[in-house]
Amino acid sequence: MPKKMNLLMFSGDYDKAMAALILANTAREMDVDVTIFFGFWGLFLVRDPDKTSDEEKTTYEKMFGMMTPKGPEDLPLSKMNFAGVGKEMLLEMMKDDDAPRLIDFLNGARKKGVKFYGCKLSVDIMGFKPDELLPEIEIITSKEYLEDAINSDMQLFI
Amino acid sequence: MPKKMNLLMFSGDYDKAMAALILANTAREMDVDVTIFFGFWGLFLVRDPDKTSDEEKTTYEKMFGMMTPKGPEDLPLSKMNFAGVGKEMLLEMMKDDDAPRLIDFLNGARKKGVKFYGCKLSVDIMGFKPDELLPEIEIITSKEYLEDAINSDMQLFI
Amino acid sequence: MPKKMNLLMFSGDYDKAMAALILANTAREMDVDVTIFFGFWGLFLVRDPDKTSDEEKTTYEKMFGMMTPKGPEDLPLSKMNFAGVGKEMLLEMMKDDDAPRLIDFLNGARKKGVKFYGCKLSVDIMGFKPDELLPEIEIITSKEYLEDAINSDMQLFI
Repeated sequence: MPKKMNLLMFSGDYDKAMAALILANTAREMDVDVTIFFGFWGLFLVRDPDKTSDEEKTTYEKMFGMMTPKGPEDLPLSKMNFAGVGKEMLLEMMKDDDAPRLIDFLNGARKKGVKFYGCKLSVDIMGFKPDELLPEIEIITSKEYLEDAINSDMQLFI
Repeated sequence: MPKKMNLLMFSGDYDKAMAALILANTAREMDVDVTIFFGFWGLFLVRDPDKTSDEEKTTYEKMFGMMTPKGPEDLPLSKMNFAGVGKEMLLEMMKDDDAPRLIDFLNGARKKGVKFYGCKLSVDIMGFKPDELLPEIEIITSKEYLEDAINSDMQLFI
Repeated sequence: MPKKMNLLMFSGDYDKAMAALILANTAREMDVDVTIFFGFWGLFLVRDPDKTSDEEKTTYEKMFGMMTPKGPEDLPLSKMNFAGVGKEMLLEMMKDDDAPRLIDFLNGARKKGVKFYGCKLSVDIMGFKPDELLPEIEIITSKEYLEDAINSDMQLFI
């Protein structure tokens, strides 16, 4: 039976999302089953930047949707972001090493069969509609997350 | 034998504390044994806001006690706190969805038999006295934490 | 067979590094095998402050090397750092309790046989040369990390 890795992606930082998705891609190449559960700020990573919507949202939800990152390339660094200058510097350093960008790791994970889940409570509070998120995202409860996580060989909170 | 989940609550952020306590409540509803070990900033979550004391504290410990959050509702957000405005906005959005507040999840965990531990070294350094913390908190060493954690089915550092 | 603990040290914060190294030292005293994988900002902790070099680095790598912490005592706090004032206060409080400093826990972990690994991709992107890091650090890929982690009894992302 294949091993199982479960990641709880809580943070909405570019660098932490890189770490999570590199691990997810690597695990799939080792035939490890991978699920990622996106909660709170982690949901920003799986917003579809071309499908933001204001329909049926409260004023707070609209403001929140506008003020927060829209998809992977829009995420800030967890440190040294310096209003984007630090992030640009890191991106240049990655380009110098021919390292893939976050969007590439995200698309790699989608192609390799990583299972993507979104946290129901977070989605409800933030007011995201299902079609504002990547189509792979299945919305589940924290109970469903825990059932998967506790039966995995490895769990990380990122 | 019931499954066991062990959380190391290191951060003192409102949103991360929400995540930890939602998981703790959910796990108990699934008959999973839960222990939370509060270390460093995580201890702010289990301060009793009505019982802060300056007795037998050094000047630094008094200053530290004053400058830091007192109990669950006093914690800032890990992101977008904006001197409290961002947090108020999130609280309003939670109210719109009838989502419980952090204090409710904390009280739920206390009622459902989640085991609460405080890190001895952190308590000593920060100068917290036992009666400044919730009565459930048992102070243990990092060795005692590790013995519990390594024999659990799931561990998260939050 | 001894139990195994695997830590992914991602953050470059003084307080989180304290937590990781206290756990590593404690685990070794319990005869638990310990590996720490340093990635991204975590690498700052294992820079040798006496051996920074600019040789064969791009302009960005040189700038990055200069702007970032050099070794354990140079790391900031994850919270309340206040340009170093908060950190000094915490260090004074630790001294009042005769608590060891981060460098002591790091040296303890080195003596007790904790295995130290550095993330190849992070080292490449940041441009660190092997002799800028502690001599114990072995550079490995994320695949090698995962093989160790998924076969451990406990994994934390710090």
